[in-house]
Amino acid sequence: MIRSSVPANGSSSQKKIRGIQNGWFTEAATMWPGQRFSLALKNYDEANSILYHKRSEFQEILIFQSAQYGKVFAIDGILQLTERDVFTFHEMMAHVPLCSHRNPERVLIVGGGDGAILREVCRHPEVTHITLVEIDPMVIEASKECLKIVPPETWYDPRLEIVHQDAAEYVEDPTNHNRFDVILADTLDPLGPAESLFEPEFYEAMHAALRPNGIVCTQGESTWIHLDLVRDLVSCCADIFDTSEYATTSIPSYPCGQIGFILARKGDGSNTRTRGCSVPVRTPAFQKDLKWYNSQMHRAAFVLPQYVKKELNAPDVNLSGRIRNVNDEEEDENGEEDDQCFLRGCTIQ
Amino acid sequence: MIRSSVPANGSSSQKKIRGIQNGWFTEAATMWPGQRFSLALKNYDEANSILYHKRSEFQEILIFQSAQYGKVFAIDGILQLTERDVFTFHEMMAHVPLCSHRNPERVLIVGGGDGAILREVCRHPEVTHITLVEIDPMVIEASKECLKIVPPETWYDPRLEIVHQDAAEYVEDPTNHNRFDVILADTLDPLGPAESLFEPEFYEAMHAALRPNGIVCTQGESTWIHLDLVRDLVSCCADIFDTSEYATTSIPSYPCGQIGFILARKGDGSNTRTRGCSVPVRTPAFQKDLKWYNSQMHRAAFVLPQYVKKELNAPDVNLSGRIRNVNDEEEDENGEEDDQCFLRGCTIQ
Repeated sequence: MIRSSVPANGSSSQKKIRGIQNGWFTEAATMWPGQRFSLALKNYDEANSILYHKRSEFQEILIFQSAQYGKVFAIDGILQLTERDVFTFHEMMAHVPLCSHRNPERVLIVGGGDGAILREVCRHPEVTHITLVEIDPMVIEASKECLKIVPPETWYDPRLEIVHQDAAEYVEDPTNHNRFDVILADTLDPLGPAESLFEPEFYEAMHAALRPNGIVCTQGESTWIHLDLVRDLVSCCADIFDTSEYATTSIPSYPCGQIGFILARKGDGSNTRTRGCSVPVRTPAFQKDLKWYNSQMHRAAFVLPQYVKKELNAPDVNLSGRIRNVNDEEEDENGEEDDQCFLRGCTIQ
Repeated sequence: MIRSSVPANGSSSQKKIRGIQNGWFTEAATMWPGQRFSLALKNYDEANSILYHKRSEFQEILIFQSAQYGKVFAIDGILQLTERDVFTFHEMMAHVPLCSHRNPERVLIVGGGDGAILREVCRHPEVTHITLVEIDPMVIEASKECLKIVPPETWYDPRLEIVHQDAAEYVEDPTNHNRFDVILADTLDPLGPAESLFEPEFYEAMHAALRPNGIVCTQGESTWIHLDLVRDLVSCCADIFDTSEYATTSIPSYPCGQIGFILARKGDGSNTRTRGCSVPVRTPAFQKDLKWYNSQMHRAAFVLPQYVKKELNAPDVNLSGRIRNVNDEEEDENGEEDDQCFLRGCTIQ
């Protein structure tokens, strides 16, 4: 996930690295005031633990070897992923939407230059084309050269096309409309340059870029910290898409240990009620290779704590739907109760 | 939760408070090395933010006003609860076992002198007797005088009996055998004096203290940090009890943002298969007063990530069981697939 992207100041001093002091990396805390999470460098040794530290045109990129979390990737002092828990966010972000779509051929990844989402998408044999739009080539360079948490062959998957462009511009380009079955938007937090990615216009553009029955899955923030924003995003998507839902997962290295996803589906233009994403329609053939996702985790991710459910005016999730094969077409029009939109009204703040 | 209890060294200096420096409280990290969680004091003001700081016969008790987490309660430098997220752990620890029992009349709370579990237990009108065994009277004093996160009347509930005794001794006392329907063991981490509370003998004593069909729910540690211990506890309980399961919840102020519970049920001595605790048999009449628990959260708590499921050799949880009324006696003997024990063998390390 790319959670912040404040332009770097141009200094390239190795001596002062944002967030690192006395053998510890401490995350900057502008969006989650009053709390800090710190990770120890391996052997408390800055000289050998810093694996990559460069400033690109866009941001400060840091990779270090931690004592307990493996390699750690940070941008502008904000934790992006660690080897220890990378699989929770990235497996859920990829497999929940992909296993909710009957035939996801064309996938767009917004951001995600670290390759972690890409690795998960590549597992799906149904996917024939993958477009990765990453504005900063240095993120991919750092991942290939140093982070290496994804197998090198991932970058050479013949289905992959890499585009270095602003994702909002790419999605808004009419030549990319009606083109994708699934869009995975591994977006920044809504501060600074990423603010536009939390505006209705971006969601409208993603809606236009989807084919009928297409699904968008975006980084959905933490209900512990930004419940108002989550509510407004779910509401905004309910206005634009046929379905709009919030799913949650656990991840130790993100603030409060919790992050969510907004999942929204475009209809097919008919009067048939569109299914939400809380019940998978396929089971992954590669389940044995996964560490976090399974079909039960998929369904349980949509179950929300009482205070969140109330705030989002979310319906009860139907946990009883059995997993259906992609060939179970006869059941296509049997919508579940959980297919209803959450809210109406669009008031992003 | 009481997560550590190292005997204090007798010094009562207000000037040096374990964990507090430069306006921040940072949790000591012996059991979760390489990571630290810090909370800002309100207004960075130690003089006014420290609400309670005393050393009892057993431990160092600290209550401070934080910037973002409300009042915070720590013992020996370890976070026990915060006003902001207290409800996740305590609602789940109380309502999952109590809503899994048809008629929980007599409840034993081990530890829990802060009152947070007690508050949740008191909500159940079925409960007629509550015994709270807290070794340290000063924890209750601090809670009543200063923490005040539970309404004062909680302490004067006519059903409540408070005992200041070592919980292991209390439970082992034959006069307390066959006495309780539910035991909620808000135990320490298995370091130092609390080690015995993670030994099979303690679980055997709790089994003896339960009435037929009784349920024990203990603090079950985090799968992110102590997966071996979780596996061994589940396994140990599977040897002693008729059912043994692990349930999980999210809580920002505990390490890795995740904590679990071991839920184990005693049979009734017949050949009828004993039900596990993953499907509630009652819905709380007081649901509107809760912030975290609901019947769907109850079931979803037993759904485990793939790597945890594999490690615990856990079966698929049946998410489809409808919630039954306490009067649905005709369904009593229809066990679910998820009622099976997880593992055999007891190898606590």
